[in-house]
Amino acid sequence: MKNVILASTSTVHGSGFLEYLYDELIASFDGIDHVLFIPYARPSGLSYEDYTSKAKLAFKKININLTGIHEQQNPENAIKSAKGIFIGGGNTFVLTKTLYDNNLIPVLKEVVETGTPYLGTSAGSNICGQTIGTTNDMPIVYPPSFIGLGLIPYNINSHYLDPDPGSTHMGETRETRINEFHVFNEIPVIGLREGSWIKLKGSEIKLQGNKTARVFAPGIPAFEISSGSQIEKSINNILKAG
Amino acid sequence: MKNVILASTSTVHGSGFLEYLYDELIASFDGIDHVLFIPYARPSGLSYEDYTSKAKLAFKKININLTGIHEQQNPENAIKSAKGIFIGGGNTFVLTKTLYDNNLIPVLKEVVETGTPYLGTSAGSNICGQTIGTTNDMPIVYPPSFIGLGLIPYNINSHYLDPDPGSTHMGETRETRINEFHVFNEIPVIGLREGSWIKLKGSEIKLQGNKTARVFAPGIPAFEISSGSQIEKSINNILKAG
Repeated sequence: MKNVILASTSTVHGSGFLEYLYDELIASFDGIDHVLFIPYARPSGLSYEDYTSKAKLAFKKININLTGIHEQQNPENAIKSAKGIFIGGGNTFVLTKTLYDNNLIPVLKEVVETGTPYLGTSAGSNICGQTIGTTNDMPIVYPPSFIGLGLIPYNINSHYLDPDPGSTHMGETRETRINEFHVFNEIPVIGLREGSWIKLKGSEIKLQGNKTARVFAPGIPAFEISSGSQIEKSINNILKAG
Repeated sequence: MKNVILASTSTVHGSGFLEYLYDELIASFDGIDHVLFIPYARPSGLSYEDYTSKAKLAFKKININLTGIHEQQNPENAIKSAKGIFIGGGNTFVLTKTLYDNNLIPVLKEVVETGTPYLGTSAGSNICGQTIGTTNDMPIVYPPSFIGLGLIPYNINSHYLDPDPGSTHMGETRETRINEFHVFNEIPVIGLREGSWIKLKGSEIKLQGNKTARVFAPGIPAFEISSGSQIEKSINNILKAG
């Protein structure tokens, strides 16, 4: 049974790394004393070692040990035998390329789909969508594919930002960018604001956290879904009504 | 002799499409009565026809005719025989993929390097760098390569934005993103603010417009260069001093 948390961000303003997620993590990782961390997204170019130290500290506060995948001899086996997995944020292109280069996409998909508890934040959530085609990140490396783990039938736009009505900047708003995505793609997109996460439990896909999420699908106006609602049902209701 | 304008944006706040560039265009496209427009970047998913109509209106005001490359039977021949070329903004990934899919990268590079006057705005400027690895755009399609035309020995970050010190958003600033690029790449990056453009005239590469530009290179702190300065010389001076 899938047991997955896909969070918009690791950190909300004014709080420590993962702190706002502790209650959810305690519930999701119940009975687990060890988590495998995948530091490949390297936020600000942080080394695997430094990023892993940071994650280790956060998990220590909820009494879970953590080691980095780079410390393991065989990353594929490390994923297979992991009791829980955490992929942190950073650059989605770097993360995707490193997972592909190490041939870890199929094994990750398999273990998470068959029940290994998973936490993704930011880039670590983006990679779980159908594609990484709605990341905000800069394409600083060229991955062999944009295809993600496909744990949900959507794409994620993490750190979703509402348009700033006072802006004089001519760069596209987030909404414009996602609408452009739908000129070329059919996949619905969940605009996940900081403080929100998607919770997969078996076949249920729920929005959690203290914000609504904005859903974009081709041919219908974007709409909001509230925390606690089942995303699949909400989208189907709107699609039927539209 | 190269004769190239690479602008951060097509439009500055409070002014019409290309309007702030008219004086520069009149000088650069002197003696030219016709320009080939490449609408492949499709801003907001705009059709080739609608985007070309918009560009046609703007060029009409400086007495230059314009036709879209999609109206031509053979796009490669259209580029070869063009008196001047304009690639407008939109999505850099869509532009790049369409140029590669139509095998137009080599011929574009050749004609612009041997003197066909060129205007790029936003995505149309990004594609002229070494790679498109510093675009702000969303990766809504998967191009066969991130390698650009390489008309300058840099990458461009168009619509460059300074960090907002009051922001509580946890998404990366532009500066953080470009610094992450330099963890994996050596290519210097020109952060080109809206209202600025790079002018190539032969071997000279000058910053133009009403703003300074921010230059990022691996291993040295980012620095500003002023309008009118020769970019290559400015960078070399800083590199020598550093």
